[in-house]
Amino acid sequence: MPNWLLPENIADVLPSEARKIEELRRLMLDNFRLYGYELVMPPMLEYLESLLAGAGEDTDLKTFKVIDPLSGRLLGLRADMTTQVARIDAHLLNRESITRLCYAGSVLHTRPSGLHATREPVQIGAEIYGHAGLEADAEIQELALGSLALAGFTNVRLDLAHVGVLRALLNEDPAAKRDETQIYCLLRAKDAPGLDEISTNYYPQTRQALLALPHLYGDVEVLAKAREQLPALPGIQRALAELAALAAGAIGRADVAIDLADLRGYQYESGAMFALYVPGLPNAVARGGRYDHVGEAFGRARPATGFSLDLRELARLLPTAERKHSIRAPWGNAPELKEKIADLRKAGEVVIQSMPGHDNVQDEFECDRVLVLENGNWILKNLG
Amino acid sequence: MPNWLLPENIADVLPSEARKIEELRRLMLDNFRLYGYELVMPPMLEYLESLLAGAGEDTDLKTFKVIDPLSGRLLGLRADMTTQVARIDAHLLNRESITRLCYAGSVLHTRPSGLHATREPVQIGAEIYGHAGLEADAEIQELALGSLALAGFTNVRLDLAHVGVLRALLNEDPAAKRDETQIYCLLRAKDAPGLDEISTNYYPQTRQALLALPHLYGDVEVLAKAREQLPALPGIQRALAELAALAAGAIGRADVAIDLADLRGYQYESGAMFALYVPGLPNAVARGGRYDHVGEAFGRARPATGFSLDLRELARLLPTAERKHSIRAPWGNAPELKEKIADLRKAGEVVIQSMPGHDNVQDEFECDRVLVLENGNWILKNLG
Repeated sequence: MPNWLLPENIADVLPSEARKIEELRRLMLDNFRLYGYELVMPPMLEYLESLLAGAGEDTDLKTFKVIDPLSGRLLGLRADMTTQVARIDAHLLNRESITRLCYAGSVLHTRPSGLHATREPVQIGAEIYGHAGLEADAEIQELALGSLALAGFTNVRLDLAHVGVLRALLNEDPAAKRDETQIYCLLRAKDAPGLDEISTNYYPQTRQALLALPHLYGDVEVLAKAREQLPALPGIQRALAELAALAAGAIGRADVAIDLADLRGYQYESGAMFALYVPGLPNAVARGGRYDHVGEAFGRARPATGFSLDLRELARLLPTAERKHSIRAPWGNAPELKEKIADLRKAGEVVIQSMPGHDNVQDEFECDRVLVLENGNWILKNLG
Repeated sequence: MPNWLLPENIADVLPSEARKIEELRRLMLDNFRLYGYELVMPPMLEYLESLLAGAGEDTDLKTFKVIDPLSGRLLGLRADMTTQVARIDAHLLNRESITRLCYAGSVLHTRPSGLHATREPVQIGAEIYGHAGLEADAEIQELALGSLALAGFTNVRLDLAHVGVLRALLNEDPAAKRDETQIYCLLRAKDAPGLDEISTNYYPQTRQALLALPHLYGDVEVLAKAREQLPALPGIQRALAELAALAAGAIGRADVAIDLADLRGYQYESGAMFALYVPGLPNAVARGGRYDHVGEAFGRARPATGFSLDLRELARLLPTAERKHSIRAPWGNAPELKEKIADLRKAGEVVIQSMPGHDNVQDEFECDRVLVLENGNWILKNLG
């Protein structure tokens, strides 16, 4: 096996693709900053228990483990950065006030989440801690939509869901509460016969609601239907009001779809959840939501909501950037030449000095001008 | 043990420090680009044999190893990115022409290289492949010096060395050649008695040169002394001429020191080597040099020279950036307010919306203005 082969679902990023990722990274981080989000850089590896604190079994299975030669303890390579950022909020910054944090970096997965998925996504995201109100969810949703707009996506679909609906239903009905995990699986599978069967001994209002949930998806009209078909529990009413407000916040920025049976983050999330879709990719490009309990594992539960996306996948969807025009200059130590080159670079021009005896070939740069000496002056000449 | 503790020599980067690292990263990558260097992103992990191809035992010991669940083979977490970039040049791009590549990313070390050294440096660097001439070394040296200048360091020392001196000496003297490893160790330790003892049966000119080498350090005057005291072998003359040219190239940008017994990279390097020092840090902040053989392990030896530095360490030396001024805005959905905030952000202002019932506290931002509604208009007011 040749030693230049890479493991499955692991790849180098070559210049034209790397440039796209780098540009998206900067655009998004700069936008986060304009909203007051502060950049943090959690480490690539931590003690496994810290990394998995508050995370589920799927994160555990996705996490590479190594022994730390210094401590003899097990380390994990981060498979997700949100727990790390929650730890930073809870213990390092430890502020009473609201904290807005953002991050960008590689995460590693033992197994790809799909046949062609990378095992090294470049995760970028933003999180807001310390505010339980919907304002925080709205700001995160605005940032996520803004990030896709900066990347040039104009045709975005926003899927909204809310764990509060099912939570409120189950909390009212002890028999149903005991079946929580099964109900969760049946709803995810939209398995109507299964729901019919399991709910025979529940309160009639629970049973009716569970059978209605799989049909409560579509545009914002769904919310009106839900108000009719679901019991008027305070938790359900709050969830529906929050979804209505978030849907209103996305008007003009995305097509909104609501799915009250979408429970993808049910185990970790605690409020509204969203997913963003763009044409050409069946999977969500960004996901976000409220997960107020994540800090608990570090001894300090704080309201929290955030979103993240994979820059590598997003960049793949974008057209290759046009090659940037560049200037070819000869090699030489003459001060006038060096000064002229420095001036051009200061003005933002890419100037590539030729090494004697070689041509230049680049993915990214197209040489359209050349620096030549005429009558004692260095001047730019266009190339045919 | 609390689960928010991090392993030894592993740390989070908090906002003010992360901002410095991010800014340095952008300044340096942008400067590389102006010279025509194309960004690549090699993976965090690879098959161990690829990562260690052409690398030495110290890299092996520094590399974390994990089993790949997909292939069952051993993977390594990169401890250094130069081998990876050489692999990209050799196999992925596979150009006949000159290739200029740059990179930036975390690397991981099983053990810190010093008591307080991080085990997760943020390595940034530039490499040029395909040109054996000194022009490539000169460009790399210029880029390295330029990188420190961009970071604000005005008082830089450039240490120059060259593996060609010792190579030429040993290649002329079979007895000395057999003792290569010992001589290398004695010279690194500047162990004059040891050199005296080991060299008794070498040719007189080899013996004399080996005893002279530990004294051949200092400013550029050393080169004249070396021409007198070392045999006039072609390899030695070439090395001294290269060092003279590189020293001349640094005039006005750094204080130059030459050390002909500095052999730190002797095993991997193949020509001129340099190290950059700044006040306040005893260790080099950047290292570079020629290592023409690195591609050989991938079946394609190409002339190569490059440099790299650790952004995390460099940022630590810089003063904390001043807090950026920001604007506080109330929460609200009024279109006029939202538009005003969007306009301010478009103009580069950081606008932080207050979540109802909370203050904001930030490391990075200092709120000096507030957006208020007066007579139906949103206007900025200065704060005390």
